[in-house]
Parts: sequence; structure tokens; C-alpha cells
Amino acid sequence: MKRPLFAFVCLFCLASVAAAQEIKFAPLGDFRLENGETIRDLQIGYRTVGTLNADKSNAILWPTWFTGTSAQLLGFVGPGKLLDSSKYFVILVDALGDGVTTSPSNSVDQPHMRFPELTIRDMVNAEYKLATERLGLKHLRAVIGISMGGMQTFQWMVSYPEFMDKAIPVVGSPKLTSYDLLLWTAEEHAIEADAAWNHGDYASMPVAGMRTAMDIHILNLTTPAYRVAQTPPDKFPAFLAQSEQDLMKSFDANDWIRQLQAMMAQDVSKPFAGSMEKAAAAVRAQVLVIPATQDHMVNPTPALNFARLLHAQTLELTSNCGHLSPGCEGKKMDSAIQEFLEK
Amino acid sequence: MKRPLFAFVCLFCLASVAAAQEIKFAPLGDFRLENGETIRDLQIGYRTVGTLNADKSNAILWPTWFTGTSAQLLGFVGPGKLLDSSKYFVILVDALGDGVTTSPSNSVDQPHMRFPELTIRDMVNAEYKLATERLGLKHLRAVIGISMGGMQTFQWMVSYPEFMDKAIPVVGSPKLTSYDLLLWTAEEHAIEADAAWNHGDYASMPVAGMRTAMDIHILNLTTPAYRVAQTPPDKFPAFLAQSEQDLMKSFDANDWIRQLQAMMAQDVSKPFAGSMEKAAAAVRAQVLVIPATQDHMVNPTPALNFARLLHAQTLELTSNCGHLSPGCEGKKMDSAIQEFLEK
Repeated sequence: MKRPLFAFVCLFCLASVAAAQEIKFAPLGDFRLENGETIRDLQIGYRTVGTLNADKSNAILWPTWFTGTSAQLLGFVGPGKLLDSSKYFVILVDALGDGVTTSPSNSVDQPHMRFPELTIRDMVNAEYKLATERLGLKHLRAVIGISMGGMQTFQWMVSYPEFMDKAIPVVGSPKLTSYDLLLWTAEEHAIEADAAWNHGDYASMPVAGMRTAMDIHILNLTTPAYRVAQTPPDKFPAFLAQSEQDLMKSFDANDWIRQLQAMMAQDVSKPFAGSMEKAAAAVRAQVLVIPATQDHMVNPTPALNFARLLHAQTLELTSNCGHLSPGCEGKKMDSAIQEFLEK
Repeated sequence: MKRPLFAFVCLFCLASVAAAQEIKFAPLGDFRLENGETIRDLQIGYRTVGTLNADKSNAILWPTWFTGTSAQLLGFVGPGKLLDSSKYFVILVDALGDGVTTSPSNSVDQPHMRFPELTIRDMVNAEYKLATERLGLKHLRAVIGISMGGMQTFQWMVSYPEFMDKAIPVVGSPKLTSYDLLLWTAEEHAIEADAAWNHGDYASMPVAGMRTAMDIHILNLTTPAYRVAQTPPDKFPAFLAQSEQDLMKSFDANDWIRQLQAMMAQDVSKPFAGSMEKAAAAVRAQVLVIPATQDHMVNPTPALNFARLLHAQTLELTSNCGHLSPGCEGKKMDSAIQEFLEK
């Protein structure tokens, strides 16, 4: 199985990721969100790879990136992969709203924008319930995640500090900057500007608005230098048409909006009256923070600031792949993560 | 009069630029475009500052940036300003489609999208006609321009190589990269996705689509680091609302589209069968190329490559203001330009 270049690239690549480890669904019942609303009959999707050892000390939880699915994470786990499945019991979790787990796109009772707004904390709370109530775990060796998975990782270490030995947020953030907010607002406005969107109750997909959102997404996934080097101007029309098509067929506009709103509301300091110092002081895990210094999709500044408060180890990815640096600098990243997990 | 921070910033700032030098209009009649179409009854707007000397050797022509007007350029000219009006006779020209010169927004015969598509070459041809036929000039001391004005400057030096001693393209480009094309395509798609757009024949402005286009524009005017440093997350909603409002009231969607298309088609090598080497070989002017290395709106690579072909002098602006670096590094830029003009 080919390891995906990374994250959103799975939305680009058409490499089919064979589902060696089948999807399972854990019914979590009516699930209360932090805004007081309820997801009715929550079915959380997940996959496990490897075997839980006798003392239940080798479990690693890995939640999905924005619009990603657990199937897309399978490429990181296995013999000779980032996470060796002969050592670890890896739980790949479909985050709330990803279209696999109960989401705006698949909920019968709460379809489209009738699906309540989500936060990253809600995602993490559901994952905690899955780990404890359904999988019977009392502790995790580690939580790891990329992008929105990295945001969940920051939230995990603050929300359930005693529950893990280690945490590895990759190109994630404990709180979004104004630049990130501008990016996601632009994508949200792009979809909402399409009359076919109709507040989520569309008869047919809001294709024009989604296309603009995809353009913005492609613009920010990497750096200008990367795009200039990869795509000569005469190849631009073909590149754009293919990228738009690949991205658009892989996502639902309602899911996109709800997960995007969850990212925009991300703030691990919220339960600490806005104090990042207090949020950091709550953390018990050993942490390896992996930002990408040229990231135009998840700004690295808040992750680096939080790492400083934690006195955490950091690994800076520096390539002009920007937010896709974990794919471009995979070897360097994998070694650092493997070493960190084993020490 | 306050010098505008720069370019698009005039779209932000509400500083009223007093029109010390009144707008004039030169009637150029029916103006033939390079695609074979005609702008009917072209009235080109311009302003002059300073006095033409006896041997007509001190004229500098400065065309507007994307969606900019000659009024916004007045802040660069005067005693103690970038261009000293006691030395130079400066002609500030409203480029085709800017809403002052005959444009989709003000043409009675060819309103909205019935206005023909434009190129940067068309803009330059109209400016040449203004300079020669209406102002009686046979030569220019220099052509200078910022952003789309810099694109016109690159075109001027190739189209009319003997007509100027010097050329100074600032954050301009001789041909757009795939990154630039992606940016402008996103803005174009944003406007077109709004049903109110109606192919340019709108009853009321396509506000939702324009808002998204403005978001994208604000996203790329500066760098992520600049936005993060300037706008704390809690100030983001106010920042965005103000920026969207300021930008939207200053532009017409039809003008935006036609000038945007002109930029996308920019390619000084077109009459040379795509050879930048041949285009560069045609240049006779002394050239000072001023790109911004962190520019996310007009990628600096093609300008730097063209400078290399010309063996031209370059001045790299390096601030995290990105495309707005000419404002942020004004002192450094002004000195270099003044010195270059005088030598």
C-alpha cells in the first residue's frame, strides 16, 4: 500500500487505499456537545491496527485531519511504516463530521445544517468515550494527529492530561491566528455565496461555491514557491481542473462547513479563561510539537508558543511544501516520532 | 497630503487624497484592441504634475495598479516625495478598465461584460497613444509602475523599447506564474459563483461573491506572519468587516473581472513566440527591477528571471508585508529609485 504523500493530498491523489483493517462503528448513543446540543445516535467510525498487549500499554490514538477519514490514515501504520503495528495497537478515529462518523452528510435525524455545530473539544470527548467505554482503555501510550488531527492532539493533552504518556501534534494548533481565521472564513463565504447552497438544504450540490473553496484550499496547502516550481503556467488549466475535480468529489459541503467551524473555534485555553499558560500547566504528557515553518494553512506560531510554555521538544519542518511538509519531509519526521515514542 | 501606505492599501485607508492635480480626459476615439475588438469612444483619464521642460526630456509616465486610479498615485509625486515635481513632469494614467478611464462600469455603449476583454498590451498601447498623440511627446525619461502598473512597465519596455530611457517595474511581472493564476482564478470564480453576478448584468451588486473575492485578496496582500503580528484573533471579526467594507465600496465587479483577466493574460513574450530571451533582447531601456521576495500576490520569480536576462539592476524588498512591501520599505525603495533616475 502506498503511503499517501500526506493529509489533504489524499484528496488529490487517486491512490486507492485498500482497507486492510475494516471500518468499525461504536454506537455512543445520544452525544451531548459542549454547546448544549446533542448528536442523536452517534456512531463513531474507527479502525484498529496491531494488537493490544497484555498490560494495555501500547495503544496509540490517531484522529483524522480536516475532511479526512480513517481509511486515509492506514498508510501511516504497518510494518516499516511510521507506526510499527507489531509494536503498537493503533486506533484510527473518524472525527465528528467527517462523513464516516455521524455527520451532516449522513445523519437521518439531523441532516445538513440541522446537524449541530461542533468543536474540537467535542471531537476529543467523543474519542475519549470510544477509548474508555467501547475499547476499555484506561490509558494511551500516545495521541498523534496531523493538521486538524494535530488540533485534536493539543486538545487531548489539555482535556485528558493523565490519559496519555505522549502527545505529538503535527502541523496542528492550540488556537487559530487571524491568518487561519481569514483563510477558513474565505472558504466558508465561498460556499455560502452560492445560491444553490441554500443554507445547507441544497437540492443539488453548490458546485460553483465549492469550486471557489477548493481554489482557496489549493492556494494555501503549499507555498507560492512550491506551486511555481511544480506547475508551469501552460500546465495550469489542466492542474486546476484536475485538482478541483478530485477535491470536490471527495467532500460534502455541509461536512466541510461544520468541521471548518470546529477548527475556527479551536482554543485550548477556553476552559482556562483564555490563559494559554494555565492550559499548558494542565498538560502532563511528554510532548513533541511538529510545526511547518512555511505553513500557509495552519499557522505555526501558536504551536511554537505553546511548545515554549510546555518546554516541549519541537521538530520544525521547513520545506516549501508548506502544510504538506509532513509528506515532503516524511523521513525526517518519521525518525523523530519513532525515537520520541520509544524513549 | 499623506502618501498612501501603498497600492491596494488605498483601498483600505480612507485617507482622502485631495485632487491637487485635476483629472483630465483624452478622447482617443474608437480604440482597437489586440483581440480585434474595439472600445468605442475611449476617454483615457490622466493627471499631470510638474512642468515639461523645454527639450521635453523630463516626462515620466506612471500607470495605475489593479483597480487603482490616478488620484491614488498623487501621493507619490510632489516636493519631497518619491518623484520630485520640480524635476519631473509626471503623467499619472488611469489604466483601461479602472472605472475612471472608459470601463465596463462607466461605458454607455459597452456596459458590464459587453465591454471587451483587455490585455496589459492594450493598456500600454492606449497610454502610448495618449503620450504621443495627445501630449505630443516623442520620448519619456522613464516609465514606472507598481503591481499591475509594474506589469505595464514590463510591457512598455518591450512594446516601445526606444521610447524611454529608464523603466522601473515595482512588484510587477512580465508573465504570471501558476500561483498568480490560481489566486486570480479563485477571485474570478468567487464573483462568478454568486447568482446575482448574472454574467455581469446584475440588477444589484453580487455582494456575497465580491465579499469572498475580497477575503482572498486580503489573504494574499501580505504574508501570514504579517497578518498574525498585526491582528490578534479577538480583533479578527472587526478587522475583516472593516476590510471587506472598505474594499467592496471602492470597486465594481465588472471592472475587477476585466482588469483581472488582463493580468492573467500578461506575457511580454507573446509576440516573440513565447521566448523571454527574445523579449528581453528587444529592451533598450536601463531597467531597475524591484520585486518583493515574500510577495503572495505577484510572484517575484518571473521579474527576477527577466532582470537576469536584461542584466538589470534589482532591488529586493524583503519585508513580511509581502505585496505591500513598497509601502513598508518606502524609504529604501525611494532612495534607490531616485538615485537610478538621476544617474
